[in-house]
Amino acid sequence: MDLSATQPRASAPRLFNDDDVRTHLDPATAVRAVRAAVLAHHEGTLQAPPRVRADIGDGHLVFTAGHLREQGVFGFRVYDTIVDAEQLVVVWDAAGGALRALVHGRELGARRTGALGAVAVEAAARPGPLRLALVGAGVQAWTQLWALHGVRKIEEAVVVARRPDRAEAFARRAAEELGLPVRAVSTVEEAVRERNVVIVATNSTEPVLDAGWIGPGTHVTTLGPKSASRHEIPAALAERAQVILTDSLAQVAGYPEPHLVGPERMTELGAVLAGAATGRTGPDQITLYCSTGLAGTEVALAAALCAAVPQQELP
Amino acid sequence: MDLSATQPRASAPRLFNDDDVRTHLDPATAVRAVRAAVLAHHEGTLQAPPRVRADIGDGHLVFTAGHLREQGVFGFRVYDTIVDAEQLVVVWDAAGGALRALVHGRELGARRTGALGAVAVEAAARPGPLRLALVGAGVQAWTQLWALHGVRKIEEAVVVARRPDRAEAFARRAAEELGLPVRAVSTVEEAVRERNVVIVATNSTEPVLDAGWIGPGTHVTTLGPKSASRHEIPAALAERAQVILTDSLAQVAGYPEPHLVGPERMTELGAVLAGAATGRTGPDQITLYCSTGLAGTEVALAAALCAAVPQQELP
Repeated sequence: MDLSATQPRASAPRLFNDDDVRTHLDPATAVRAVRAAVLAHHEGTLQAPPRVRADIGDGHLVFTAGHLREQGVFGFRVYDTIVDAEQLVVVWDAAGGALRALVHGRELGARRTGALGAVAVEAAARPGPLRLALVGAGVQAWTQLWALHGVRKIEEAVVVARRPDRAEAFARRAAEELGLPVRAVSTVEEAVRERNVVIVATNSTEPVLDAGWIGPGTHVTTLGPKSASRHEIPAALAERAQVILTDSLAQVAGYPEPHLVGPERMTELGAVLAGAATGRTGPDQITLYCSTGLAGTEVALAAALCAAVPQQELP
Repeated sequence: MDLSATQPRASAPRLFNDDDVRTHLDPATAVRAVRAAVLAHHEGTLQAPPRVRADIGDGHLVFTAGHLREQGVFGFRVYDTIVDAEQLVVVWDAAGGALRALVHGRELGARRTGALGAVAVEAAARPGPLRLALVGAGVQAWTQLWALHGVRKIEEAVVVARRPDRAEAFARRAAEELGLPVRAVSTVEEAVRERNVVIVATNSTEPVLDAGWIGPGTHVTTLGPKSASRHEIPAALAERAQVILTDSLAQVAGYPEPHLVGPERMTELGAVLAGAATGRTGPDQITLYCSTGLAGTEVALAAALCAAVPQQELP
C-alpha cells in the first residue's frame, strides 16, 4: 500500500476513438510498427506473456499485455467474453510511468491484424504485384486489403462473400476509400483461381474452398477458425503448404483446442524476418500464414498512432 | 476472432483525472458507494476475483476486476510493479458494453481506501462524535480524514508524523480544505491516548505505538504493513481487540506473507453490515479494522464519480 504523498503528473493521456484510428493511421506506418514488434518479439525485446483472465461472473475480462523495450512503452489490450464490450488499448511511457494513450473501439485491433497479415505477405509471398482474392467481406478482410495496399502494388483484387450484397458493398468501399478497383465475384472458386495471394477471412467452421483451386506459388492467409475440428480452409491445403507461418507459436500452443496445423510444422514469422528461419525458397511453393494476434502488437500500434497524431496545443 | 463488421458506438467514454476526483467526489457519496459495494460483495452481487498479473519483464501489470450487478457496471483497476506508473480505473456499462469512464491518477484509489475506512468506523466504532488520532500524515491518513468527515461529526482531531513539518502541513490542509481544526502533536502517545478512533497510516514495518496507550472502547484502523513479521501496530493490540474486521478475507488469505492476525480471528466487514456477523457488542471493546482494499470498490467509486459529474454538452 502506497502511503506516500500524491505525485501530480503534468500531462494527460491522449484519448483516441475509431474515427481517430481511421483518419490518422496510414497502412505503411501500421505495417512498419507491427513488423518492428514481431521482430522485437523474436529478439526478446518485446515481452508479451500469455493472456491473463479475470473471472467476473458470466465471463471474463481478458488482458493481453506487452512491453516494447526499444520504444520505451508498455501496456495492454482488454476485451471481454460477456457482452462483447468496447475494447481498450492502454499505453504507458516506461520511463516515468505517465499514461501516454488510451485507444477505445474496434478499429485498432482490426488494423493490427491487417498489418500482421501484410507483414506475413511481405515475408512469404512471391515478390511483385498482387493478384489478390478476398474470401469474406467483413472487417477482417477489409483491414487485410487496407494494410496490403500500403506496402504492395495491387494489380487485381476480387472479393466473394456468402451474401453478394456485402461483397458489392466491400468493392464500393475499396473504390471510395482506397481508390482500388475490387471486383465482386459470385463463387469462391472464381475468386481464388489464378490469384497469387488468397486471404480467407470468414467465420466458417467448415472449409469454404477446395485445396485444388489454389495454384502453385500462392500465398494463403487464414484469419477465421483454424482448430483441428473446425477450420475455414481445408486440411489438404495445410498439407500442401511447404511453409506455414504464425505470429506466435506460444499463443498457438495456448489455444484451448488443438490447431489445424501442428506447431512442429509451423515457423514463427519473427524468425523469418530476422533471417533465423527459412521462409519461401522457391516460386512454386505454397505458403500459409495462420493469424494469431501476437500480444503486444496492439500496444505497438497505439504508440505509432500516438506519434502520428499531432499533439494538440494545450489551452 | 471477430470477423463481423465494425459496430460504431455513439458515445465516448468520459476521462477523469485527479483534479476531477478532488473536485467532484464528495466524501458522503464515496462512502455510500463503497459501503454498497462491500455489502454487494457479501451478498454475492459484486463479483471480485483475486487479482491477476501479467509478467512483462522487470515486473508485472496487476489487474483487480469487479462486476457490480446491481449497478450494471463492470471494470477494473490496473497498476504496475515496475515504475509505479500512473494508475487507471476503467468502467463499462454491462448492458451494451459501452465504455463509461476512464479515471487516471492516484486520487480515486486513495479515496476508495478512505471510504472503506469510514465504512469500517461506522460499523465498529462507538456511536457519537469522533475524537480522532491520525498517525501518519500522508495521502492515506488524509483520505481517511476526508471520508470520516463526510459521515461523522469530528469533535477533535490530532495528527502525528515522523517529520513534524508534514504533520503541520497536514493540519493546515485540513483547516483549508475541510474547515476542520486538526492539531499537530509531537508524539504518538500524545496523539492516541484518550481518542476513540485511531488511524494508523504509516510505512513502518515495526510498531509505532504501544498497545497500552489504546484505551477501552477505541476503534483502530491499520493501513500500513500488517504481516506477521512486519507490522505498524503491535501484536499485543491485535490480541487485545475483541472484534477484528477486514474488507476481504479472500484477499487477506491471498497475501504472500501470513497476516499479523489469523483469518480465523477476522470477520468480514460486509457480513457485519448485512447483520450476518457480530461486530461490536459492548462500549469497552477494542475494535480493529485491517484495510485490504476489496477489489471492485474502485469500479464502484468510478461509477459514482461518473454519476456525480454532470455530462458535458456535446459540441
